[in-house]
Amino acid sequence: MAKRKHRRPRNKILERKVGLKPGTFSAPTESFPPRFFLISFNQDFFEELELKTYPELLQRVTEMPDARHWIDIRGYGDQAVLEQLSQDFGLHPLQMEDVINDYQRPKVEEFDEKRLFIISRMLRWSPENKTLDDVQLSLFTGPNYVLSLQSDYADCLDPLRERIRVGKGVIRQRPTMYMAYAMMDVVLDYYFPVMAEMGEYIEDLEQQVLLSPSKNNLTLILDLKSELVKLRRITWPERDKMTEMLRMDEDVIPESLKAYFRDAYDHSIQLIDLIDNHKEMTSSLVDLHMSTVSNRMNDIMKVLTIISTIFIPLSFIVGVYGMNFAREDPETGRVYPMSMPELYQPYSYPILLLLMSFLILSQLYFFYRKGWFRSF
Amino acid sequence: MAKRKHRRPRNKILERKVGLKPGTFSAPTESFPPRFFLISFNQDFFEELELKTYPELLQRVTEMPDARHWIDIRGYGDQAVLEQLSQDFGLHPLQMEDVINDYQRPKVEEFDEKRLFIISRMLRWSPENKTLDDVQLSLFTGPNYVLSLQSDYADCLDPLRERIRVGKGVIRQRPTMYMAYAMMDVVLDYYFPVMAEMGEYIEDLEQQVLLSPSKNNLTLILDLKSELVKLRRITWPERDKMTEMLRMDEDVIPESLKAYFRDAYDHSIQLIDLIDNHKEMTSSLVDLHMSTVSNRMNDIMKVLTIISTIFIPLSFIVGVYGMNFAREDPETGRVYPMSMPELYQPYSYPILLLLMSFLILSQLYFFYRKGWFRSF
Amino acid sequence: MAKRKHRRPRNKILERKVGLKPGTFSAPTESFPPRFFLISFNQDFFEELELKTYPELLQRVTEMPDARHWIDIRGYGDQAVLEQLSQDFGLHPLQMEDVINDYQRPKVEEFDEKRLFIISRMLRWSPENKTLDDVQLSLFTGPNYVLSLQSDYADCLDPLRERIRVGKGVIRQRPTMYMAYAMMDVVLDYYFPVMAEMGEYIEDLEQQVLLSPSKNNLTLILDLKSELVKLRRITWPERDKMTEMLRMDEDVIPESLKAYFRDAYDHSIQLIDLIDNHKEMTSSLVDLHMSTVSNRMNDIMKVLTIISTIFIPLSFIVGVYGMNFAREDPETGRVYPMSMPELYQPYSYPILLLLMSFLILSQLYFFYRKGWFRSF
Amino acid sequence: MAKRKHRRPRNKILERKVGLKPGTFSAPTESFPPRFFLISFNQDFFEELELKTYPELLQRVTEMPDARHWIDIRGYGDQAVLEQLSQDFGLHPLQMEDVINDYQRPKVEEFDEKRLFIISRMLRWSPENKTLDDVQLSLFTGPNYVLSLQSDYADCLDPLRERIRVGKGVIRQRPTMYMAYAMMDVVLDYYFPVMAEMGEYIEDLEQQVLLSPSKNNLTLILDLKSELVKLRRITWPERDKMTEMLRMDEDVIPESLKAYFRDAYDHSIQLIDLIDNHKEMTSSLVDLHMSTVSNRMNDIMKVLTIISTIFIPLSFIVGVYGMNFAREDPETGRVYPMSMPELYQPYSYPILLLLMSFLILSQLYFFYRKGWFRSF
Amino acid sequence: MAKRKHRRPRNKILERKVGLKPGTFSAPTESFPPRFFLISFNQDFFEELELKTYPELLQRVTEMPDARHWIDIRGYGDQAVLEQLSQDFGLHPLQMEDVINDYQRPKVEEFDEKRLFIISRMLRWSPENKTLDDVQLSLFTGPNYVLSLQSDYADCLDPLRERIRVGKGVIRQRPTMYMAYAMMDVVLDYYFPVMAEMGEYIEDLEQQVLLSPSKNNLTLILDLKSELVKLRRITWPERDKMTEMLRMDEDVIPESLKAYFRDAYDHSIQLIDLIDNHKEMTSSLVDLHMSTVSNRMNDIMKVLTIISTIFIPLSFIVGVYGMNFAREDPETGRVYPMSMPELYQPYSYPILLLLMSFLILSQLYFFYRKGWFRSF
Repeated sequence: MAKRKHRRPRNKILERKVGLKPGTFSAPTESFPPRFFLISFNQDFFEELELKTYPELLQRVTEMPDARHWIDIRGYGDQAVLEQLSQDFGLHPLQMEDVINDYQRPKVEEFDEKRLFIISRMLRWSPENKTLDDVQLSLFTGPNYVLSLQSDYADCLDPLRERIRVGKGVIRQRPTMYMAYAMMDVVLDYYFPVMAEMGEYIEDLEQQVLLSPSKNNLTLILDLKSELVKLRRITWPERDKMTEMLRMDEDVIPESLKAYFRDAYDHSIQLIDLIDNHKEMTSSLVDLHMSTVSNRMNDIMKVLTIISTIFIPLSFIVGVYGMNFAREDPETGRVYPMSMPELYQPYSYPILLLLMSFLILSQLYFFYRKGWFRSF
Repeated sequence: MAKRKHRRPRNKILERKVGLKPGTFSAPTESFPPRFFLISFNQDFFEELELKTYPELLQRVTEMPDARHWIDIRGYGDQAVLEQLSQDFGLHPLQMEDVINDYQRPKVEEFDEKRLFIISRMLRWSPENKTLDDVQLSLFTGPNYVLSLQSDYADCLDPLRERIRVGKGVIRQRPTMYMAYAMMDVVLDYYFPVMAEMGEYIEDLEQQVLLSPSKNNLTLILDLKSELVKLRRITWPERDKMTEMLRMDEDVIPESLKAYFRDAYDHSIQLIDLIDNHKEMTSSLVDLHMSTVSNRMNDIMKVLTIISTIFIPLSFIVGVYGMNFAREDPETGRVYPMSMPELYQPYSYPILLLLMSFLILSQLYFFYRKGWFRSF
Repeated sequence: MAKRKHRRPRNKILERKVGLKPGTFSAPTESFPPRFFLISFNQDFFEELELKTYPELLQRVTEMPDARHWIDIRGYGDQAVLEQLSQDFGLHPLQMEDVINDYQRPKVEEFDEKRLFIISRMLRWSPENKTLDDVQLSLFTGPNYVLSLQSDYADCLDPLRERIRVGKGVIRQRPTMYMAYAMMDVVLDYYFPVMAEMGEYIEDLEQQVLLSPSKNNLTLILDLKSELVKLRRITWPERDKMTEMLRMDEDVIPESLKAYFRDAYDHSIQLIDLIDNHKEMTSSLVDLHMSTVSNRMNDIMKVLTIISTIFIPLSFIVGVYGMNFAREDPETGRVYPMSMPELYQPYSYPILLLLMSFLILSQLYFFYRKGWFRSF
Repeated sequence: MAKRKHRRPRNKILERKVGLKPGTFSAPTESFPPRFFLISFNQDFFEELELKTYPELLQRVTEMPDARHWIDIRGYGDQAVLEQLSQDFGLHPLQMEDVINDYQRPKVEEFDEKRLFIISRMLRWSPENKTLDDVQLSLFTGPNYVLSLQSDYADCLDPLRERIRVGKGVIRQRPTMYMAYAMMDVVLDYYFPVMAEMGEYIEDLEQQVLLSPSKNNLTLILDLKSELVKLRRITWPERDKMTEMLRMDEDVIPESLKAYFRDAYDHSIQLIDLIDNHKEMTSSLVDLHMSTVSNRMNDIMKVLTIISTIFIPLSFIVGVYGMNFAREDPETGRVYPMSMPELYQPYSYPILLLLMSFLILSQLYFFYRKGWFRSF
Repeated sequence: MAKRKHRRPRNKILERKVGLKPGTFSAPTESFPPRFFLISFNQDFFEELELKTYPELLQRVTEMPDARHWIDIRGYGDQAVLEQLSQDFGLHPLQMEDVINDYQRPKVEEFDEKRLFIISRMLRWSPENKTLDDVQLSLFTGPNYVLSLQSDYADCLDPLRERIRVGKGVIRQRPTMYMAYAMMDVVLDYYFPVMAEMGEYIEDLEQQVLLSPSKNNLTLILDLKSELVKLRRITWPERDKMTEMLRMDEDVIPESLKAYFRDAYDHSIQLIDLIDNHKEMTSSLVDLHMSTVSNRMNDIMKVLTIISTIFIPLSFIVGVYGMNFAREDPETGRVYPMSMPELYQPYSYPILLLLMSFLILSQLYFFYRKGWFRSF
């Protein structure tokens, strides 16, 4: 029996702890110990460090008030660090709770004045399991820094780091908010190849469904649909986030950057378009599966019907001539002329064989005309 | 015949009494006698009491005008108390009607000035029946108290009570409205484990459906769908309630608390997301069920077709050689050479057996090639 | 053949006369002759009359300018009365047309200044036919009266009349608009027991569908769905009506009554919730019906397949031993040792019977293992 | 094979000519030559003419500046007239294009100042083909005239003409805009009997589907659905048109007429309600058809299964006693006592017949208990 | 097995390069080398050129500051040209990125002041593959020019070019913005014949589905549905674009042109109507397909059932008379009078044949009455 091999990855929101005092946060026990990365730059200089402890990081940042910093902390395994961080950077406990509990919808919040708290979700597609995974990236902007927090060591921001390293010009000259934009943009850019892979997977599934309507295929389709529903749920707020940022004050997001945010907004809409497209195609796959099952049933029925309608009447005919009606009165020996006289003619047997062959052929012709042999 | 074991729990709204004068309320006859709990606290002291009568409760509250109180009345079984309550706390008869008739959608109403009347619904999941139950929690805020009313003795607010007892700091310092928020938040928090249990139940159902497409399974799926529809209907107004509270004046809900309400708003949206997700998965289960039924039909038809197409033609063949065509003219004794000469050859029988075995094997090979044995 | 016994009640909107001059009204020919009821009251006195003619009614009202009146006219069978009415109470011909043609959606219109024209629909559920019927109640408010018009003598306003008679206090003290509210509220209250009856009927249908997937059941389900669609169509505008009234000026609806209208608004939303719930459950019934049909097909196929796969091979085997291969050369008498030697062994027959019994048992075991006997 | 007899009427929008310069219009070649009708009236006099040429028409109108005119031009077959018309009445070429190309959605446009350009669609139901046809009616209002244009000679405005002729009072006293309203209202009124006919047709279809689930019925249902989709598409903008007119300035539509437009608005909403109702019922018909097909399959399968399960085992039994096991050793003549002893008992045959009759009866009882005979 | 012959054309959005620095653009490698066309005109003169290089083009434009220019560049194969263009015409790098990456939704952006950046999508229908293709047309307006960019040499703007060449009057007198409108309008006009071709294709598909429910047909239907989903996705933003332009300031789009834009807006709505109509019809095709599959199954089952129910009982009867019950005691020779006495009557055989013929005829009559022969 077709047992499912993998369980669907659990919905992250469901891992939420219940009954916690709101506005408290505690380092998740299974989290990695934090690592501290710092990229500091100016129009003139550039420095990329991994620091051992949080105090070192803080010191390095305060030493360079003129530079812009990307403070990049990965892993939430140390409660003390998290609390210190919350205090030093003026983060509300509820915000820290949002950061740590990795199940927030993408959103943007303005706090203090002119500072932003942004949540994006980094997407990963597992090609073997055909499942999506998403990890939260939390950003806090400050006057001369962007603080990024994530639970994993690995992320999809390397292209951006490379760009800061190499491309001396553009990103280093722009205001800090541009850096935040660039991070969100790289995250969003990563959705597109995932969508492309899903698109190919859908086409593969379609081929499989056309070849065989197995129960397993349907499970795969429904799993995919479930992934797309999940994906849609994190992409819609992405778009809302962008709309909100487009409407923000000149003070928070300078007019010169609006074109970039408008671009990101366009991307988020394209993503939603794509997801809807994939969803429609997946729904069509269910239709196709159902129809293939029905067609297969038709094929089976045709085999049965052809064989049965040919041989059942023939069996009857030969049964007739297997009957034992007596040819003569057992007592008097008087011959019964009407009792199966065919049995006593010299050419009855070959004539019967010919008749039956003719019957078979005419039935085959009838089925051929009704097109029953076409789909084999 | 698959009779349903349990009836669905009746929709509470339907228990509404008809033709009642609006703005009158009467203690429901089947309700518990009221019990009176009081939690009073200050930054400095804390007191938790159960009082015997309503006058005692009222006296205790009026004695301590500087403290903040959580007046917690459970059970509506005493009309006199309810009327007294309505008068003492300035509650409109229509509000009392809403409180007592346990079928209100979650809502918030501002009344008098700066006072709120809030309805939340506490959720319970019965793991045996796989049904949801929801009980109404009605809150009235006042200058230095929150009045909570519920029909049941048991509730899901114990974590909050514990927090007030233990956590000396936060909740005791905040304005009264924070207490109301904390109650709503605990109630909402309770939805998440229920959703998690439903999620697991959905996965169990999926396994069951894959194993057997029984009518019972479909009934379970449709029951679950109905529960989710009901759940969605109480969660959507929950979200509207939060939106409304977020838009309220500084006077009613201080700006310093807005972050908390925004957090609760986020939770309500996550809940709706989850419910929609569960609904989509449940709809997929119906598809899966239908497809499993069809596949099972295909399997049955395959068995029938394989057996029939193999043996019906063979039966015909052996029928042929069971015919009684005479070998010779019964009168003259002249031999008919074309009348079933096969019957009179020494090796006809073994040759026929071989032929029939070959026919069986070639048919089996044909079915194997068409993949009919694959799904058994 | 399953002919439908009753036609669905015709949609009232379709009885509309076409090509009539707009703003003309004419008494419908099949209508009852009008009857005139008057309830007049004050904080101090109360009077309830049925008057013979319209002029008497009018006179009685004008005689008591200090009292409040509920002018209650039932039956539209007298054109002259209608025209007089329109003139005396300042009603626009288009409004009279709306009153008489009993197919309006619920609505509220402000006219002149501070006067309201309100249309509600009184619901009736016919328990035998399981159909809904709705009759229009038209209200016009005036400074010290409410004029109610309906085509039928019977209505659902008796509880209200009783309340005015008995309850000396509340309703007699409130402004006239409260009386209009009370009428709408009683009408709306009447929807809830109808919904409850529909809910029970849905559960009954579910039981019937589970027992037998007859065509008749589906027709019943689809009829019910159609009734719910109709019901939804008159409940949605009910809600819009309430929203509109909530937004009206202090002059039209005093602030002190708003709480009551808000309550009625809540009821209308609960109704929509209930109807949507019933609709979802009815849709699920269609799924259940379809699945029951498929399951029944599976059961039928299983019976056929079990019987056929057991007996068709056995028939083949006994056919083999019914063949007439000769045991010896008819001319020479030489024995053919390979020509059906089984026939000439002493224990062939019992051995064959044993073999066939074993075959039957092993097939039954196979079907048992595949769970084919489970659903019988 | 069930070929469709009629093609669906082509969508008018698709007959649009492509690549035309916008703002040019040319008389459609297949159109009728224009006919010119004029109804002129005043509170005091009335005149109805058909004029031979356009100049005559124009002259007649200019001769009577104090009267109100309904200039009624039917047929677009003369380019010169159209151009002259456009110039004389100040119509924009794009408007003329809209008039001539008979595929516009209902709409209203204000142009110049206080003039309106209104498009309505006149509906026709063809009872034989069960198809809808709609013809465009274009109206231009002016200070003392309404100019109506349509491509066909026949229309549905005769009741209005009659009303102007006969009813001396109302319509002749009102402002010109009332005449435009009256035309729109008559057009809209005509939708209701069409809806009633469609409703009856739906009930007929339901009866047909219940009697036989033929492919033809499904085609009819889907055709009807397609007509309803088309109808909905021209009714929605009708409602939008009315909303827009209700919001227009006092200057354009006098307040005294608003009640009439509000009435027309109500009608348009009732129409949408009706169409949605018809659509739901049509969708239910598809469900009913599918279910009837399945039920029919069940009936067929039941016949097959009953016959097969009764006679296949019996055939096996009689096959057993057709076997030729020898009763004695052909060489020695020793009797084999276990070789089919039943054959040599005097009452074996009648006992067997009895046994088989009992088998048949018990199977029939089994099927009866399972309710298989119920639906025949 | 029905393998799909063509893969669906890949979604253009998916060809997006990931991780690119936002605001950089690079000439796509596979693009054509750019060609430079220039149409310059005035009320008095007209000139149409193809220039060899970009500098020539630029020079020609700057030489004629009084003329209006349509600068028409096709092919993006030269990075240097693109960069120069971006600088000379003041185009933002993000805009250039949008131009080059051919996957933008239709949109309009105001930039600088009073300049517009417009994206339209030109549609092409491939009649062999029944697939849609769409190519992007990017427009930038300037004080006295419209700059159009597209990746392909071929386009659908030739009717417009012809109009400028020939029609001396209208287009040459209007402001530059009219030219931009005219381009958008021609592009949109081209959608209508595509829709007409799709409509015909849908009717063809319907005929095919009615004739044979092959798996291939379903694939064609689902492909078409997918194309319509795609088409809808590019038509909706087209409408939004038009709404936005209608709301633009007098400075950007002169009031005198608004009528034209309103016309284009109407067209975009008609398009959406048409697409929705096509989508509904395509969904109906899926229903029709499913029903045809079921009907075909019914036909197959009927053949099987008719043949089986006729011949299986007959086979049983003849089997009865093939039994070998002994007529007399083999030892004593005593005759068994009840042992198959029928076998020894002179007219048993003809009577049996008659009986069986009667059975056949009555069964045929039964099937005829149940209407089973009707659909063959």
